Amino acid sequence: MEQLLRVMNFCLSGDGIGAGFSDRQSLESPFGCDRPERLFSWAGATASWPNRTETGGTRGLDDYFTRDFLNGIGAEIMGRNKFGPQRGPWTDLEWQGWWGDEPPFRTPVFVMTHHPRPSFSLSDTTFHFVSGEPADILARAREAADGKDVRLGGGVSTVRQFLDAGLIDTLHVAVAPVKLGEGLRLWESPEELTDRYHLEVVPSPSGVTHHLFWRK
Amino acid sequence: MEQLLRVMNFCLSGDGIGAGFSDRQSLESPFGCDRPERLFSWAGATASWPNRTETGGTRGLDDYFTRDFLNGIGAEIMGRNKFGPQRGPWTDLEWQGWWGDEPPFRTPVFVMTHHPRPSFSLSDTTFHFVSGEPADILARAREAADGKDVRLGGGVSTVRQFLDAGLIDTLHVAVAPVKLGEGLRLWESPEELTDRYHLEVVPSPSGVTHHLFWRK
Repeated sequence: MEQLLRVMNFCLSGDGIGAGFSDRQSLESPFGCDRPERLFSWAGATASWPNRTETGGTRGLDDYFTRDFLNGIGAEIMGRNKFGPQRGPWTDLEWQGWWGDEPPFRTPVFVMTHHPRPSFSLSDTTFHFVSGEPADILARAREAADGKDVRLGGGVSTVRQFLDAGLIDTLHVAVAPVKLGEGLRLWESPEELTDRYHLEVVPSPSGVTHHLFWRK
Repeated sequence: MEQLLRVMNFCLSGDGIGAGFSDRQSLESPFGCDRPERLFSWAGATASWPNRTETGGTRGLDDYFTRDFLNGIGAEIMGRNKFGPQRGPWTDLEWQGWWGDEPPFRTPVFVMTHHPRPSFSLSDTTFHFVSGEPADILARAREAADGKDVRLGGGVSTVRQFLDAGLIDTLHVAVAPVKLGEGLRLWESPEELTDRYHLEVVPSPSGVTHHLFWRK
């Protein structure tokens, strides 16, 4: 059975930036930039946003993307910066990441880091800390995903690394109608990927533009 | 937990018609109209089409809709004509519907009919034959869905019946760029529903236009 590697609901500015420079990241500023909600408020407005605690929310186009977050996914791979702002060896094992007591992933999650740390579980998410080449980490995630697809969670540098290794099967990038000016850049233009991927560009009534790539 | 009643991937012509008149339906012509694939070929082109037997297929916008077919769904309700072309009492119990040995539903399915027939299973789909008011049938389907949503599968008359009873929470109607001229009509215009529903109209690169309704 085919197990895809999928980037889903990846939020980007109109000038191709997904987060501030990583030296500006901190516990208080996971994205390292000013008002990052400008990038992902479209997702928070939907009924199926994984972190939603109240009823309500829209059920239009954007909701199909947030609904798909858990659909057929058996594992996630994320860069260390999506787990926390720490650098170097892990010194505070009490701090268990940005994702709260009930992380939205609900599968094994493989956090890429050169520094070893024991695995632990929060609710139905288990975090593993792994080093190695992208292809090796993907092989481990596929095994854990038990026949399902693997989500590549980001951030920008992690997506770039897997793109450069030719490992990504589908990408959904939601481009917000804002410019950030500086920070970690995924692309200068989405056209950079069209040699390897089909691309559909779908404007949403919410103002974001969904970019849907799949392998040629 | 909220259990929605959802119409999904419902295929319609540009002039609002979903099938031929029901007296033209037969074993050989489930839709009772000429070349019904003009209405649903957009779905068959996607990678996630439930009846796909070969690899391949598109993974753009349309695929998000076919991917969603089983996502969070615990039961389906369908009109008798979606099960088969017979009218009156069931005389041939050997014939088990149009859906083959592995029906795509993979849940309990409630077929609306005034004529009793024993339940039976094909692979992981179980067909039940039920009569009664839409609200009563929905209550049975919700119970069987075990906390998940219920799909209302059609056809046109069944959707109209549940719309008129105010029971539908979300509708996804894919309007194809063809006109059928005559047959069973869902609407004269999608605007007829906007007093009760939000509506987003999303053109797809494939040529169909997705209409996404959710309750106000």
